[in-house]
Amino acid sequence: MQHLDTLKGPVAVTVTPVTKEYKPDYEELQRQTDWLCNSGITGLFPCSSTGEFVKLQPEEKIKVLKAVAQQNQGRKKLIAGACGASAEEVLRYTEAAKEYGYDACVVCPPYYYPQNQADILHFYQKLAQNAGGMAIMMYHVPFFTTGLALDTIQQLMQEGQIVGIKDSSANMKQIAHTNQIKPDGFLVYTGTDDCLLPALTAGCDGSMTALAGILPEWITAVYQSWERRNFENAYRIQRSVLPLLRLADSLPFPAGYKLLAQIRGLAIGPVPETISPEKTAEILEKMKAEIQRLTEGGFINESSGLAGL
Amino acid sequence: MQHLDTLKGPVAVTVTPVTKEYKPDYEELQRQTDWLCNSGITGLFPCSSTGEFVKLQPEEKIKVLKAVAQQNQGRKKLIAGACGASAEEVLRYTEAAKEYGYDACVVCPPYYYPQNQADILHFYQKLAQNAGGMAIMMYHVPFFTTGLALDTIQQLMQEGQIVGIKDSSANMKQIAHTNQIKPDGFLVYTGTDDCLLPALTAGCDGSMTALAGILPEWITAVYQSWERRNFENAYRIQRSVLPLLRLADSLPFPAGYKLLAQIRGLAIGPVPETISPEKTAEILEKMKAEIQRLTEGGFINESSGLAGL
Amino acid sequence: MQHLDTLKGPVAVTVTPVTKEYKPDYEELQRQTDWLCNSGITGLFPCSSTGEFVKLQPEEKIKVLKAVAQQNQGRKKLIAGACGASAEEVLRYTEAAKEYGYDACVVCPPYYYPQNQADILHFYQKLAQNAGGMAIMMYHVPFFTTGLALDTIQQLMQEGQIVGIKDSSANMKQIAHTNQIKPDGFLVYTGTDDCLLPALTAGCDGSMTALAGILPEWITAVYQSWERRNFENAYRIQRSVLPLLRLADSLPFPAGYKLLAQIRGLAIGPVPETISPEKTAEILEKMKAEIQRLTEGGFINESSGLAGL
Amino acid sequence: MQHLDTLKGPVAVTVTPVTKEYKPDYEELQRQTDWLCNSGITGLFPCSSTGEFVKLQPEEKIKVLKAVAQQNQGRKKLIAGACGASAEEVLRYTEAAKEYGYDACVVCPPYYYPQNQADILHFYQKLAQNAGGMAIMMYHVPFFTTGLALDTIQQLMQEGQIVGIKDSSANMKQIAHTNQIKPDGFLVYTGTDDCLLPALTAGCDGSMTALAGILPEWITAVYQSWERRNFENAYRIQRSVLPLLRLADSLPFPAGYKLLAQIRGLAIGPVPETISPEKTAEILEKMKAEIQRLTEGGFINESSGLAGL
Repeated sequence: MQHLDTLKGPVAVTVTPVTKEYKPDYEELQRQTDWLCNSGITGLFPCSSTGEFVKLQPEEKIKVLKAVAQQNQGRKKLIAGACGASAEEVLRYTEAAKEYGYDACVVCPPYYYPQNQADILHFYQKLAQNAGGMAIMMYHVPFFTTGLALDTIQQLMQEGQIVGIKDSSANMKQIAHTNQIKPDGFLVYTGTDDCLLPALTAGCDGSMTALAGILPEWITAVYQSWERRNFENAYRIQRSVLPLLRLADSLPFPAGYKLLAQIRGLAIGPVPETISPEKTAEILEKMKAEIQRLTEGGFINESSGLAGL
Repeated sequence: MQHLDTLKGPVAVTVTPVTKEYKPDYEELQRQTDWLCNSGITGLFPCSSTGEFVKLQPEEKIKVLKAVAQQNQGRKKLIAGACGASAEEVLRYTEAAKEYGYDACVVCPPYYYPQNQADILHFYQKLAQNAGGMAIMMYHVPFFTTGLALDTIQQLMQEGQIVGIKDSSANMKQIAHTNQIKPDGFLVYTGTDDCLLPALTAGCDGSMTALAGILPEWITAVYQSWERRNFENAYRIQRSVLPLLRLADSLPFPAGYKLLAQIRGLAIGPVPETISPEKTAEILEKMKAEIQRLTEGGFINESSGLAGL
Repeated sequence: MQHLDTLKGPVAVTVTPVTKEYKPDYEELQRQTDWLCNSGITGLFPCSSTGEFVKLQPEEKIKVLKAVAQQNQGRKKLIAGACGASAEEVLRYTEAAKEYGYDACVVCPPYYYPQNQADILHFYQKLAQNAGGMAIMMYHVPFFTTGLALDTIQQLMQEGQIVGIKDSSANMKQIAHTNQIKPDGFLVYTGTDDCLLPALTAGCDGSMTALAGILPEWITAVYQSWERRNFENAYRIQRSVLPLLRLADSLPFPAGYKLLAQIRGLAIGPVPETISPEKTAEILEKMKAEIQRLTEGGFINESSGLAGL
Repeated sequence: MQHLDTLKGPVAVTVTPVTKEYKPDYEELQRQTDWLCNSGITGLFPCSSTGEFVKLQPEEKIKVLKAVAQQNQGRKKLIAGACGASAEEVLRYTEAAKEYGYDACVVCPPYYYPQNQADILHFYQKLAQNAGGMAIMMYHVPFFTTGLALDTIQQLMQEGQIVGIKDSSANMKQIAHTNQIKPDGFLVYTGTDDCLLPALTAGCDGSMTALAGILPEWITAVYQSWERRNFENAYRIQRSVLPLLRLADSLPFPAGYKLLAQIRGLAIGPVPETISPEKTAEILEKMKAEIQRLTEGGFINESSGLAGL
């Protein structure tokens, strides 16, 4: 197995800015990429669930991967969201990711049709054999598609090309066991900002989350305090964003995170439609107040928002 | 609300034949369309779950809708699978369906991201308002995406453009209540071959199922016996296919139905990949034996398979 | 396997009348038993889920079984609810049921702790071997405790002492397959009033439901029309109770059914507590209006309520 | 709200030793209580899920509570498992717990029948009002009965008599938010040994788990290292038991934990029955090897097992 220790730490799953016609806004994407390249995070992860990969066409996803890589110019590590409805579709993305210099690809089990564990095992084994040397990471996200049982994960840890897992379940029991059984060099990431610190104390190597792309200075502060074993500080910082995350989760995913990105100066295109414009406006106001509170508390630096550039 | 009584009865959700490159095989699709146009079924429903819409690109789905309509030439009623990851995507399909003369569109709630009932309500209301007069049918398929609660269905029955529902839950309690509360002219379909006859006795107006596209003579026989109130015969015919359906369901959906189509002479392209070629071959042999048994029992007419043309 | 053809048809799962101290009211229980013995149903089933077995102590359950059997005096078939938290507890009930002359016992998989299918298989096999000749019926009720997969059911159909299954899932696909694979003489019951007629058309041998104990004349009318193959009438009668069932299900189970019993003159003891007395009173009024409508429509005979005795 | 800071830390949910007749073995129970009173844990919690409360009769549960309190003689804090099928049943246990000097009662939402959040809210409010001053703790255990949504928890935090929550979900996202919104003095416990350390870093005040009653020296070591902020040591100790916990979870809950107790010298009565004696024996051997490994590693002190007394 490849050892990818440089991929540890906070990775940003980025929102995808769109035009009025709901097509990716590549120019704005590059502006946002540039902003994140100047932050302290480890890497960028376009075409994630937060990035609404499921609403993009294959060609658009490949162009998004390309635009981010071109702008990045080697500054940050790159993880490609390479999810698709079939192994054939996924392999198009792993190939593109290889061409554009991505460090690894995250792939969820096929969605829409439920899978059994034997099917999931077969799916990842096929990918590992056909990905042309591209490093593959599993993706456990039981709210969106069939989850991976610990036994399945353990078997797939033996495949040389499978180098890690993103676990977005927030099930800390499974995360703890995944960390305990992982081979040397295998990477385990949490996908949940709300319990980042607990996940690190469960042995996780890093995180792949939305806040890393929206409040990068917040997440790097959590990591720094944790790495210095200043637990009280790490806990205080972790805790500070929880009210904001509850607001973000009160809208259909990922609308709340897109609004939050907009508040921070990242253009996102048309305001995501939810039940009513009134409800959206109300959440937006509450989010702004929380952002203000976080700024005043020194948890985030308002001027580091993209709007301030 | 439009009254679409001519849409009652057995509708075929069709498999999508593909080339070696996993692109739709439009020529073969038209050959299969032609074969079904010569059967006793009510209508054709391309781009369904059975048709693996989730693995097709938007342009491909639109071309599939066009190819079927062109070949059909008004012979059968046409229902378009118009599912997509967002309302914007869905509206591309409803527009195409209108252009090609489809009678109605079936739309599932957005998949991958779980929805709450308020979001689903809003989603269908938006579609109803923007579909340019195209008739919309809801799609309750809780195994694949968020299901619709009876309250939600009841509210959406009031939208003039929403003319029916496909219910693939096999939950006969909800299906019975849906039928009891439906306004005059509203259409309720089961999506489950296994309990077609019970669904008809629960008040359903028709069915949208895979066997209608593979064993059309079987399904028309069930309907005919039922309509003549020859219940014993209807039950005998209904019951006859259950072992075959268990075999089809022993593979990841819809692989079993694609194999079954292949046995009946419908080219499908590469054999769907499952856990192992040995397992697939074993199921295939058992299916052939069941088809043989059904032929000998007079439940299906082997020569009416497309292979016999 | 014993053949218990006389157990076919509508069986009543009865509510358990309680005193002010929430102890079974054995006297009232016998009065209600007597009333049901004068109706057209096949059998009585005390200590069911509707009878709130989970709130009764073992000694109380055994006394309930005894009181019903003593009053019945052989007039109706008797099915004992014999559910418990462990095989040891269940065997106390099967023994009592044998002593009091019950025809069969219905047993659910152990509740509270989730089970896997191998555990469930083992549980029923142990019961079958130790029940001293008492006929056992499985109970598939996935909303309350772990459900039984079709494979598990098929294996347990081979145990001589296991003579039937009550399926309260309303999943008509599984019910259809259960009926198709059942050995000669094996009994399959639906537990759902809402889809009784569809279940009969799926091959079920009978039903074990609450309405049989509250509106016995309604359920016998459904069966009679169905047996004469007067489908239109059977459907009209089946359909007539659906609004009433929606009202009953709008309260926490089984409170709605207890209120309904009360309206029909069956003393139940203290009004079941729900969110608010106002809500309960409102539902009660709507139920009375529905009962009035059913009486006027000739679907039920008001005077046959116990109040009329 | 009462402040119960002395209840913080590791609480042991204890197994219930039984006689050959599956009745509580009160004598052995007191011997085990005595052993735990000599350990470093905070408190004892009889009649828990691990203690198989669901298999005990009300009188037995009350006698268990009494036996533990009598033996304890004020040495450890006492938490009563007070779960029942109805509020009436629960109130019998809260009354007994008050009489015997328990510090608080843990109560799960009614099991078997699924509840909605409004019902659960009403249930706990009724308990809070009728528990005669006994402190009540909520119990979130979504695998066994309906779980509590964060909104419900937040509303119930306002009830003065409700002083804490046991969360056995291992969902660290919900646990983190529960901790962030808790009023001053409100106690949040994890019910999961596997992620004890992460739960403490999410803000939990303590734990209510099986290992505290089986390997008390292990759990106190985790807490001590954590309280001294010797994170590396805390992590090493936490991690050490994970293989053992996977073995325990490979049997139907709580059989694995009962076997583990037996290995440590706690008599449990008849070996819990599982699929096969061979499987049980195999797991037992593997557990012994793990216990040996933990002893050699200095994680547990073999002589502190009850067998060594």
